[in-house]
Amino acid sequence: MSVDVTADLRVKLDRIKTDILELAELGRDPADKGIYRMAFTDADMQGKQWLKDRIEDAGFEPLQDGALNVSAVLESGNDRPRILVGSHIDTVPCAGALDGTLGVVVGLECLRCLKENGIVPQRDVELIAFSDEEGRFGGMFGSQSVAGQMNPGAVATMKDLNGILLSDELKRHGYDAREALDAARDPESIAGYLELHIEQGPVLDHVQKPVGIVDEITGLFTWAVRLRGEANHAGTTPMELRNDAFMGLAEFANELPRILEENGSDRSRATIGKAQIMPGAANTVPGLVEFSLDVRDTSDETLDELAAALRKALSAIARRRNLMFDFEQMSYLQPVKCSELIVNQLTQQAKHLGLAYQTMPSGAAHDAQIMGRIVPVGMVFVPSKNGQSHSPAEWTAWSDIEAGANLLLHAIMSMTR
Amino acid sequence: MSVDVTADLRVKLDRIKTDILELAELGRDPADKGIYRMAFTDADMQGKQWLKDRIEDAGFEPLQDGALNVSAVLESGNDRPRILVGSHIDTVPCAGALDGTLGVVVGLECLRCLKENGIVPQRDVELIAFSDEEGRFGGMFGSQSVAGQMNPGAVATMKDLNGILLSDELKRHGYDAREALDAARDPESIAGYLELHIEQGPVLDHVQKPVGIVDEITGLFTWAVRLRGEANHAGTTPMELRNDAFMGLAEFANELPRILEENGSDRSRATIGKAQIMPGAANTVPGLVEFSLDVRDTSDETLDELAAALRKALSAIARRRNLMFDFEQMSYLQPVKCSELIVNQLTQQAKHLGLAYQTMPSGAAHDAQIMGRIVPVGMVFVPSKNGQSHSPAEWTAWSDIEAGANLLLHAIMSMTR
Repeated sequence: MSVDVTADLRVKLDRIKTDILELAELGRDPADKGIYRMAFTDADMQGKQWLKDRIEDAGFEPLQDGALNVSAVLESGNDRPRILVGSHIDTVPCAGALDGTLGVVVGLECLRCLKENGIVPQRDVELIAFSDEEGRFGGMFGSQSVAGQMNPGAVATMKDLNGILLSDELKRHGYDAREALDAARDPESIAGYLELHIEQGPVLDHVQKPVGIVDEITGLFTWAVRLRGEANHAGTTPMELRNDAFMGLAEFANELPRILEENGSDRSRATIGKAQIMPGAANTVPGLVEFSLDVRDTSDETLDELAAALRKALSAIARRRNLMFDFEQMSYLQPVKCSELIVNQLTQQAKHLGLAYQTMPSGAAHDAQIMGRIVPVGMVFVPSKNGQSHSPAEWTAWSDIEAGANLLLHAIMSMTR
Repeated sequence: MSVDVTADLRVKLDRIKTDILELAELGRDPADKGIYRMAFTDADMQGKQWLKDRIEDAGFEPLQDGALNVSAVLESGNDRPRILVGSHIDTVPCAGALDGTLGVVVGLECLRCLKENGIVPQRDVELIAFSDEEGRFGGMFGSQSVAGQMNPGAVATMKDLNGILLSDELKRHGYDAREALDAARDPESIAGYLELHIEQGPVLDHVQKPVGIVDEITGLFTWAVRLRGEANHAGTTPMELRNDAFMGLAEFANELPRILEENGSDRSRATIGKAQIMPGAANTVPGLVEFSLDVRDTSDETLDELAAALRKALSAIARRRNLMFDFEQMSYLQPVKCSELIVNQLTQQAKHLGLAYQTMPSGAAHDAQIMGRIVPVGMVFVPSKNGQSHSPAEWTAWSDIEAGANLLLHAIMSMTR
């Protein structure tokens, strides 16, 4: 009998809508329509207070840990490992209304929905809004604290791009950054972490499906590469006597598709997003280029193979063109596999709800990537119109949000039965 | 008998050396070793005065026209069209000691040499040091004035990069810029213009020859090209759903060698010297690139064919990659052929002097390019060590300077017999 009752349970889209639109007013700049709610700014702190108020309105006790993660628990009355569901409400500068925020608002709606229907879960369900997912202070402070990946040295020295210390910014609000170390959870206490998020890419919009079920979160490495040739006069230097650093970069960029085809998977990406050409005059053959290379895949081995192939290609081009070549690895993030069990649950519930879904990787990093290092994780994506995010142009149809929210609700129910 | 006397005539290298080293002290910055003698600065005016003094020392009358070109005439006693020989003594910022200066100092030495050996030419020989060849005020003010290419509007509005008006700068020294219009010469009064200059390229240094005989001065066009795609997240946007503006540029750059081979000559050059990639973040697919394209050849028709082929390639790439493409022509300079007669004279005299020579184009622009529009011109190049110029690293072996100076001397003699 109980199965029949829950099978028809649905979220209330109006409440999600109201919450999204309300929260979107906090930190909004009327001039450029962007939302400025970077972690631990006054606007972000207002957002946290707004969330605590909504948690209280829904009949839960608002909680906050040492990393200023805000949470609420739907009690089961037992101490079996719990389900966490959440995302973050901090934003990049000039953000849209959905990134992160949607996962928190939808998570809250799920808790409200379960509570008002008198459903007592077989394990606690905790909504959590992680602090600083967007990395104002260089990492994912909230989820890293929960995952036990903070240490006193990091907490004391983390700075934003303006040189403001995290510890000073928290002190300003009356908090002690060192208490973030107390936010660490015992992995044994968590059965799984679920996160709904906008895709931030064009795939679901392109295939016209309302939900994505994430099976892997891509890892990445970024390199800063330098090719050094010789700056020369563009008129007096014959083509065959040049050591043109930019032409080396152009040849390398042109080889990227081949390198991905030969050594990557259909989930591989390689991007040259910035390049500086020196001396940078129209009538001078470039003597030096410095450029970024961002490479992603969902498999560690594939990333290694891509790195080897890219190094080989760069060094062959440098040799052939008489250029000096060196590079530095600027960042590395390990790929994370989502829990097979959770992916199966999400798939079953999508079918139960009659939702067209796409199994897909996450190309962006999320709190789920951090949590995935210590507990089973699963993610639900909803479409990003034209793949846009991190801008006021970020948008998802309300009907797709409703579909994703119902999938999350039913996944929570199936995991807490 | 007179042929025998002149056949053995040689310049005095010591005097050239002394003049070069003396003039190199005017405008020198002890900190970076560079020479700052930009047109009409106090240092440049000191240079002009220095030159007038040397002209006087050599027993000539120093002359200055309305464009502040400084000259000296070795009189023939007749009014047949004269030979001009010269270059410029203004410099780029942080210059070396030779660019321009060498041609003036060597020209003066030729006049001194002829005079002290009692040689009376069959037509006047005039040394001329043109003002502002380096284009502080946007053109080649001195030679353009002589060539009759100035007009009152240009003279009134020419500005340097700091917004200083040419007319104000000349007023500061007690001159009226409008008098530049009086510097125009009747082309019928000039039989030819000879210029010795450092090559500013690596060719003579590479082939180890002391002199180059220029047969053509390349023309050029420069384009500012814009490719517009769509900025996207480097992790979430599959390779096949990207409109990556930078990859369009890379493909185009990679096609340049083919385009030059198919449509150009061995004197064609194409250079992408600067590029700006936007938004320019490592984790963002570039949505826009703006880059410069500098294309040179010694033939007008070839330049036209190259322009057509480049346009075709750009528009095919833009179409294939779903990019918007537009470009603007930023500058155009017509190629100039040197006088066949003068090239033959220079070749004969190089053989007479036993000098290994290379017939070659000039890839850089010179006063000879301006003068070549109204009178026959010829140029002698001497090697630039490693192709360096416009920097304190600019250097030419004294023995090569001597070889070039003797070639110029004998060319003058053969043309004034």
